Amino acid sequence: MNSSYIIKVDCPDEKGLVYKVSEVLYKNGVNIITNREFVDLENRRFFFRAEVNGEVQVEEIKNELQEKLGNDANIYMSKREKKNIVILCTKEAHALGDILIKHYSGELNANILAVVSNYEILKPLVEKFDIPYHFISHEGLSRVSHEEQILKVLKSYEVDYIVLAKYMRILTPEFVKNYTNHIINIHHSFLPAFIGANPYKQAYNRGVKIIGATAHIVNDNLDEGPIISQDIIRVDHTYSWKDMQCAGRNIEKSVLSNALTLAFDDKIFINGNKTIIF
Amino acid sequence: MNSSYIIKVDCPDEKGLVYKVSEVLYKNGVNIITNREFVDLENRRFFFRAEVNGEVQVEEIKNELQEKLGNDANIYMSKREKKNIVILCTKEAHALGDILIKHYSGELNANILAVVSNYEILKPLVEKFDIPYHFISHEGLSRVSHEEQILKVLKSYEVDYIVLAKYMRILTPEFVKNYTNHIINIHHSFLPAFIGANPYKQAYNRGVKIIGATAHIVNDNLDEGPIISQDIIRVDHTYSWKDMQCAGRNIEKSVLSNALTLAFDDKIFINGNKTIIF
Amino acid sequence: MNSSYIIKVDCPDEKGLVYKVSEVLYKNGVNIITNREFVDLENRRFFFRAEVNGEVQVEEIKNELQEKLGNDANIYMSKREKKNIVILCTKEAHALGDILIKHYSGELNANILAVVSNYEILKPLVEKFDIPYHFISHEGLSRVSHEEQILKVLKSYEVDYIVLAKYMRILTPEFVKNYTNHIINIHHSFLPAFIGANPYKQAYNRGVKIIGATAHIVNDNLDEGPIISQDIIRVDHTYSWKDMQCAGRNIEKSVLSNALTLAFDDKIFINGNKTIIF
Amino acid sequence: MNSSYIIKVDCPDEKGLVYKVSEVLYKNGVNIITNREFVDLENRRFFFRAEVNGEVQVEEIKNELQEKLGNDANIYMSKREKKNIVILCTKEAHALGDILIKHYSGELNANILAVVSNYEILKPLVEKFDIPYHFISHEGLSRVSHEEQILKVLKSYEVDYIVLAKYMRILTPEFVKNYTNHIINIHHSFLPAFIGANPYKQAYNRGVKIIGATAHIVNDNLDEGPIISQDIIRVDHTYSWKDMQCAGRNIEKSVLSNALTLAFDDKIFINGNKTIIF
Repeated sequence: MNSSYIIKVDCPDEKGLVYKVSEVLYKNGVNIITNREFVDLENRRFFFRAEVNGEVQVEEIKNELQEKLGNDANIYMSKREKKNIVILCTKEAHALGDILIKHYSGELNANILAVVSNYEILKPLVEKFDIPYHFISHEGLSRVSHEEQILKVLKSYEVDYIVLAKYMRILTPEFVKNYTNHIINIHHSFLPAFIGANPYKQAYNRGVKIIGATAHIVNDNLDEGPIISQDIIRVDHTYSWKDMQCAGRNIEKSVLSNALTLAFDDKIFINGNKTIIF
Repeated sequence: MNSSYIIKVDCPDEKGLVYKVSEVLYKNGVNIITNREFVDLENRRFFFRAEVNGEVQVEEIKNELQEKLGNDANIYMSKREKKNIVILCTKEAHALGDILIKHYSGELNANILAVVSNYEILKPLVEKFDIPYHFISHEGLSRVSHEEQILKVLKSYEVDYIVLAKYMRILTPEFVKNYTNHIINIHHSFLPAFIGANPYKQAYNRGVKIIGATAHIVNDNLDEGPIISQDIIRVDHTYSWKDMQCAGRNIEKSVLSNALTLAFDDKIFINGNKTIIF
Repeated sequence: MNSSYIIKVDCPDEKGLVYKVSEVLYKNGVNIITNREFVDLENRRFFFRAEVNGEVQVEEIKNELQEKLGNDANIYMSKREKKNIVILCTKEAHALGDILIKHYSGELNANILAVVSNYEILKPLVEKFDIPYHFISHEGLSRVSHEEQILKVLKSYEVDYIVLAKYMRILTPEFVKNYTNHIINIHHSFLPAFIGANPYKQAYNRGVKIIGATAHIVNDNLDEGPIISQDIIRVDHTYSWKDMQCAGRNIEKSVLSNALTLAFDDKIFINGNKTIIF
Repeated sequence: MNSSYIIKVDCPDEKGLVYKVSEVLYKNGVNIITNREFVDLENRRFFFRAEVNGEVQVEEIKNELQEKLGNDANIYMSKREKKNIVILCTKEAHALGDILIKHYSGELNANILAVVSNYEILKPLVEKFDIPYHFISHEGLSRVSHEEQILKVLKSYEVDYIVLAKYMRILTPEFVKNYTNHIINIHHSFLPAFIGANPYKQAYNRGVKIIGATAHIVNDNLDEGPIISQDIIRVDHTYSWKDMQCAGRNIEKSVLSNALTLAFDDKIFINGNKTIIF
C-alpha cells in the first residue's frame, strides 16, 4: 500500500541526526519527497520534517526512531489526511464564513465537526451548511462553569484542532491544557502591538499607517502564544477606527486561513514560545 | 432633510474649476466633508469627487453644474446607498462565497439581486442564502444566443453593476455595451502578465516568485479594461501550479472585494483605459 | 512669472471652506493642478493642500486667506524648491548612505548642508561627498551640554528639516522645541511594537513573522511622535536577531526615504499626534 | 580546523538520497547545522543544500559524493567566504550606489573588484570608494567588439559573479556563456510583464496599480532567465511614468540586493529556466 505520510521529529541536537533519521526511513523502504531540517543553536534542539511515501509500517518506524533518538525526542508520523476541527466564535461572520466556504468547496484540509458559540447570532449561517451549532451562553455563568459546558461539548467530538474564529472570550489555562498547542486563535492586531481590548481603536488613536492580524497558538498568557502567521494592510488618515476594523477583517480571515493550512498540513513545530514553520 | 451624497464631476480642464464647483455647492447649502481633485495634464481633463451633506436639491445642483461646466462635463450625484448587483460565475465558489458572506453579514455595500451561471454546481450554495440562481447553460448555444439568454435575465433586474466572480467565458462587445463601465471582473493574474488561459500554469512555467490578481472594468478587449485594483502573494519553487491556483484564490477574492468596495462607494472614474480612484 | 507653488491650509471646520479658499486662488489668477481636502470630523478641523501654478503674489494670497479664515488658520505657501537639511547619525551607514547616494544623483528633493554625529566613524563616508561632517562626542558631557554643542552647529545653518538617520540618542524636549515638527526620525521597529532598546532582539524573542520600520516626527515623547510612514518585511525561524537587524536595514532606509519625500514635497500635516498625508 | 562550509548537491532523483548524502557527511565528521531538500517530481531531480561545520576534508567528501551519486550529480562544496564580483552599469547611480554603501559598511558578502561601464558618468562615484572603474564606450563599436573589450577586462579578474546594476545593454549569448549562471541582472519590471524598452512607460500606459522589479540570472534570452527575486510597490493615477521610475528605483535596488544576498550565500540552484532557493 503506497501512501503519503508526514514525519516530524524534534529532539536535543547532536551530530549525525539527519543521517540517523534518514537511515531509519531508507531501511524501512520510505522515500523522502521533501524535507527540511533546522537546528535551534541557542537551545540546542533539532527539528526535522519530511513528506514521504512508500509501503509504510508506521508503528515500527516510530519505535525505531524513538529508540535511536531517545526519550527526549518527539516523534510524529501520520497519514496525510483531513484534520477534525471544532470552531469557536462569538458574533462576527467573516472568519467563520471564510472557513465555511472553503470547507464547502473542498479547499479546507479539515472536517468541521461543529461550531460552538456564546451567542445565537451565527446559528442560521452555520446551519445553512448542515453543521451542528452549539449555543452556550455565558450569561449568568462563571467563566469556569461556562468553559465546563463548552468542554463537555468539545469532548463529545474527536478533535485535532480547536479554531477560535474571533471567539471574543479569554480562555483559562485550565481550559487550554485540554488541547495544549492545538488551539489556534486569530488576533485582530499585529502582535505585540495593541494587546488587549479593541486594537483597531488603539491603532486609530496611535495614527499608525499599517494595521495587521496575527494567528497564534493559544497558551496560558493571553495574546502571547507562539505566532504562526501575520499579515498587514495599509491605512491612512481617512480611516475611522470602524473603517480600520472593516478593512482588517479581510486580513484577519486570510491570516487565519493561512495558519490553518500550515497547521492542517503538519508544518508547525512549537519551540518554546515560538513556532518553526517548514 | 439632511443626508449624505456623492458628487462626481469630470470635464475638460480649465482655470477655476474647483472654485466653480464649490461655489455651486456652497450656494446650494451643501457642506463638503471630503473632496479630491485631479487634473490629467496629458489629456487636459479635470476630475472631482466630493462627499457632502446638507439639505440637497439634487436636480437643481446637477443642472447648475452642467450649465456652468458645459456639455462635455459628466455630472454624477447620488445619495449614498446600496448598489444593486447581479453576479455571474461559473464553477468556483471562493470569490462568490466571499461576496455572499459579506452580503449576509451586512458588510457589502450592495444588494445581490441574483446570481447567473452557465453551470448548476453553485446553485445549492447560492440558494442557502435565498438568492435567485439562474442556470443558463452555454451548451449547444452560440456565444451570441447564450448571451442573449443571459441578457434577458439581467434586463429583468435593475442593475447598477454586473460582477464577474470568476465567470470563465469571454463577453462580446455587444454584451458589454449594455453595461458600459459597469461590469467588474476579477482576473487571476497580475495583468498584463499572463493574459489568456490558465495564468497559474503560465506563472508556474515561468518560475515567478510572486503571483497576483487584477480586478478591472470589462471593456471590448479581453483582459485589457481599466484596472481598479491589484494585489500579489509570494510563491516559491515548492508550489505546483495547483498550489499557486489555491493560494491565488485568497487574493482573487480580496482584490475583487476591494474593487467592489471602491465601485459601490463611487470612488472610481474611468479615464480612457485607466481608472482614477479617489 | 509662471511658477509652481504648494499651498497648505488648516483651520477650524465650517461650511464653504473649499469655496472660500478656491475663490481667493481663482481671483488671484492661480490655477489648481491638484488638490486634496479632508475634514477631521472628530476634532472639527479642515485640511487643504493644493499644487498650483500661475503668476503668483505669495504675500497677497496668504494675507487674503488669513483674513478670510481667521487667526486659527495656519496658512503655508511656498515655491516648490529643494529643502535644506542637516542629518544626525551615530555609527550605522545604511540610512545615511542611502540619502547620500540619492543626493549625489539628484534624486533627493533637498540640499544636505551638513552631517552631525557623536562618533567619528562615518566621517570618511560623508567627506567623500564633500559634505561637512561635525563630530561632537557625547563623552564626558551631560545630555544638555551635548545638545547645546549640537544646537550651536545646527543654528549656524538655515535648516528646514533635521533628519535622524539612525541617531541613537534620545533628544530632550528642550532640544526638540527648536525644530517643532521638523525633526524626522527612523525607528527600527513597527511602532508601537517594540518601543525602547534593541527592537530586533525583542522581535526575535517574541517570535514575530514580520518586522517593520517607522518614520515619525519627533516630539517630546520618545517613539511616540506622529507616524509618517511604515513598512514591513517577512522573517522566519531561521533568522537570528542579527539577521533581522540586517534585513531590517533595507526597510529602515526605504521607509525613511519615503518619509523624506513626503516631507520635502510638503505633503504632511500634523494633526495632534497623527499625520494627514495628501 | 573547525570551519563553516556550504554543500550543494543536485542529481537525478532516486530512493535514499538524503540517507546517502548524510551518511557521507556523518562518516567524515561533518555536522549539519541546517539543510533543505527538494525533489522536482516533474523532472525527477533531487536538490540538497546544507550548512555544515567540522574538520572538513573538502576534496575527499566531494569525491565520495560524486562516486555515490554518479556522474549526473553536481557537487558543490565551498568554505563560507566572500565572493568576488565585478559590477556592470550604465548611467543610473541607485543600484550601484546601494551596493557600494553596503560594501563600504561591510554588509555585502562580496568583494567588489571593479566596476565596468559604457559611460563615464558614474566614475567619480565609484572612485570615491577606491574601486577601479573601467570606462569602455560602446560608441563606434559593434556589439561584438564592445563585448570583447569588456571581456578582456573581466578576464583580468577572478570573478565569481557579474552583477548588472542597471546595465542597459543586451548581452549576446557568446558573452553570457563565459559566465553561465553567474550573471545577475535587475530588470525594472515585474517580469514577465513589460518585457522590452521602458517598462515604466508601458506600466503607466496600461494604468497598473502595482509596479515591480525582478532580479534574474542572465541567459541567452533577454528578460527570460531564471527569476531569483521579485518585489512590488503600489502606484496610483497621480504617478507620471517618471514618478513610477523614481519610485521603482527603491525596489530595483532592494530586489537586486536581496538576490545578491541569496547568490553570495550559495542559496540558489538553477533548475532549467527556474530557480530553487533554499
